[in-house]
Amino acid sequence: MARPIITLTTDFGTGDYFVGAMKGVILSINPDIEIVDITHNVLPHDILDGALTIGQTYKYYPPKTIHVVVVDPGVGGARRPLLVAGDQHYFVGPDNGVFSSVYEHSEALHVWNVISEHYFRQPVSTTFHGRDVFAPVAAWLTKSWQPSSFGEAITDFARFAMPKPKVNGNSVKGVVLRVDHFGNLITNLTPADVPALAKADAKFTIKAGSGQITKVVPTFSLAAAGEAVGVIGSTGHLEIAMNKGNASKALGALRGAEVIVELS
Amino acid sequence: MARPIITLTTDFGTGDYFVGAMKGVILSINPDIEIVDITHNVLPHDILDGALTIGQTYKYYPPKTIHVVVVDPGVGGARRPLLVAGDQHYFVGPDNGVFSSVYEHSEALHVWNVISEHYFRQPVSTTFHGRDVFAPVAAWLTKSWQPSSFGEAITDFARFAMPKPKVNGNSVKGVVLRVDHFGNLITNLTPADVPALAKADAKFTIKAGSGQITKVVPTFSLAAAGEAVGVIGSTGHLEIAMNKGNASKALGALRGAEVIVELS
Amino acid sequence: MARPIITLTTDFGTGDYFVGAMKGVILSINPDIEIVDITHNVLPHDILDGALTIGQTYKYYPPKTIHVVVVDPGVGGARRPLLVAGDQHYFVGPDNGVFSSVYEHSEALHVWNVISEHYFRQPVSTTFHGRDVFAPVAAWLTKSWQPSSFGEAITDFARFAMPKPKVNGNSVKGVVLRVDHFGNLITNLTPADVPALAKADAKFTIKAGSGQITKVVPTFSLAAAGEAVGVIGSTGHLEIAMNKGNASKALGALRGAEVIVELS
Repeated sequence: MARPIITLTTDFGTGDYFVGAMKGVILSINPDIEIVDITHNVLPHDILDGALTIGQTYKYYPPKTIHVVVVDPGVGGARRPLLVAGDQHYFVGPDNGVFSSVYEHSEALHVWNVISEHYFRQPVSTTFHGRDVFAPVAAWLTKSWQPSSFGEAITDFARFAMPKPKVNGNSVKGVVLRVDHFGNLITNLTPADVPALAKADAKFTIKAGSGQITKVVPTFSLAAAGEAVGVIGSTGHLEIAMNKGNASKALGALRGAEVIVELS
Repeated sequence: MARPIITLTTDFGTGDYFVGAMKGVILSINPDIEIVDITHNVLPHDILDGALTIGQTYKYYPPKTIHVVVVDPGVGGARRPLLVAGDQHYFVGPDNGVFSSVYEHSEALHVWNVISEHYFRQPVSTTFHGRDVFAPVAAWLTKSWQPSSFGEAITDFARFAMPKPKVNGNSVKGVVLRVDHFGNLITNLTPADVPALAKADAKFTIKAGSGQITKVVPTFSLAAAGEAVGVIGSTGHLEIAMNKGNASKALGALRGAEVIVELS
Repeated sequence: MARPIITLTTDFGTGDYFVGAMKGVILSINPDIEIVDITHNVLPHDILDGALTIGQTYKYYPPKTIHVVVVDPGVGGARRPLLVAGDQHYFVGPDNGVFSSVYEHSEALHVWNVISEHYFRQPVSTTFHGRDVFAPVAAWLTKSWQPSSFGEAITDFARFAMPKPKVNGNSVKGVVLRVDHFGNLITNLTPADVPALAKADAKFTIKAGSGQITKVVPTFSLAAAGEAVGVIGSTGHLEIAMNKGNASKALGALRGAEVIVELS
């Protein structure tokens, strides 16, 4: 039988002892677990960024994968620790909305408030539940696969709506969700919101930062070098990209910047 | 039986071929080893930073874990390669003090100068013992678990004292050991040194950079946004933090900065 | 039997969902694969940098390792996906020259244009073949080890020459291939090109950036602190280094900078 998989998604960076400590705690409980880093570079304290990251990544993993997500500015406060079963995957992390995108995708959804403290590392610190609560809960789950033994089922978990585009006449207003490693602007706009983006003969202007873009191309290399274009990216979202360039720097648009599509 | 675990802690960064080469060397000797990155972002050439990192992380791993630590500005010179057995763990790295914190924690401590060159990758370079000495020694150890076959026992290994706070009347002087990913200042002060930090009604002022802090709170979120506070962090040390902010930037305090607690 | 090993070398960085998605795709096809990160910090879109990275790293891995290399500015365009068998290793990536160094090292070399689309993740995106083509091809290869079932053998694959030094009388002109994490300048010069570099009594001047270097020492610590020296590094190349310093910053020399050795 294949080893259980635990993935890690955090805002801890990779320079401190945080991630190493979590992995040690997991392997001390069950050394046969396969630990996979998704990323530790979620923007610090940014729950939306964490929600987007896990929401677009978990589905590539096999069923029964356990995804630990720690973006947890409220650590040590009143927010509850959660164990979630949704879309054939498990999720462990704080009840602050970081699983909002997972909730959107899941039909059969079960959420437990984790209260069985004997699964925690003792003593539980007030500032590092990644090590003391979330990592051990995930590791112990691989021993029993009985999520209901970890706490009580709840339905009042925190969730927020992913940012949605706003239509206003011939104009659709969206937002830059993330600037990727290449400087591409990942927006919250999709062809479902703006069908023109996927039509060969449609005319429109996309405004993002200082850019005025009139072309959506199938892939980056179909733009001239240094030309800003739209691309429907690998997550199905409109991206503003620059072939062999950095669109974010060139257009002066960062995460949170407005993106407006004007149809003509 | 679970696979042997080798952890890696280096100052190599993750952009070059260094870490990939070490992992390949390990897997070529024993492909069943579980390799875990603790961090490759120890400050370059900074033996103290390496000593602190491994010292606070190794104990979360299962007994018999082998920790390879390569912060090695004297590579190719006279410093010896070491194999250390302490506190139920093994450690492999240069004899330059990088295991000082490990030595402090270990009761039954055995240290070998590694001289059995048939365990090395040949030819041994003068500049990359991570690949040619430390990685292969760690990997071969998983084949025999006979540390004494790697060299001769020594007791004159290099060690330095971790930086200790200094008490001067009503004032205690410490230092920032590390600035973490969130900009928190991790100090060398603990409630054992300064009991007032853990007392609800104590009055004191903590000076760090431009900050004058009078409050130690149980966790970050109990401070107002942008307020600098003290927190007894997950390693038991006083941290200067700013809720949803970067204390290091806001207070202008970096690694090595003085931290003074004045009791009143 | 040991688990199959797949290594990853990309220019994706570690902050986005790219690497996490690739790993999930691999583990969904074969959860028993050992995935190893070589680096995700190849310079963005820089095929030469990718070719150098995989060329100097793959040989440390056991035979039959599969190396996935994704530096792919032409993704979604006409360039073909390749499966390569060379030097007892497998390689999967785009046909853009990123395997040029591998081709140089391999005697028995087989290259297939991957056209068996039933091994791809469907639908295949136009912008992320790391996820949809290269990761699944590598994972499926571990199920059959039949590379010829993935496509048709070709011999007209793209390759470029690694940058070679130029001799001009008593002067040899090379180039900085890479600046490493410590600021060392890794050049394309070796003692094979410039035998004087390895001779104790030879006289020469190495010019790189603002530096005029007259000394090649066996290892970094034999230079005075802050002194720029030459070192024959762990890959056999001349490196310009500064003991406990950053040669690139101190000398103002970046990747691509000229390095001239003048013999006297």
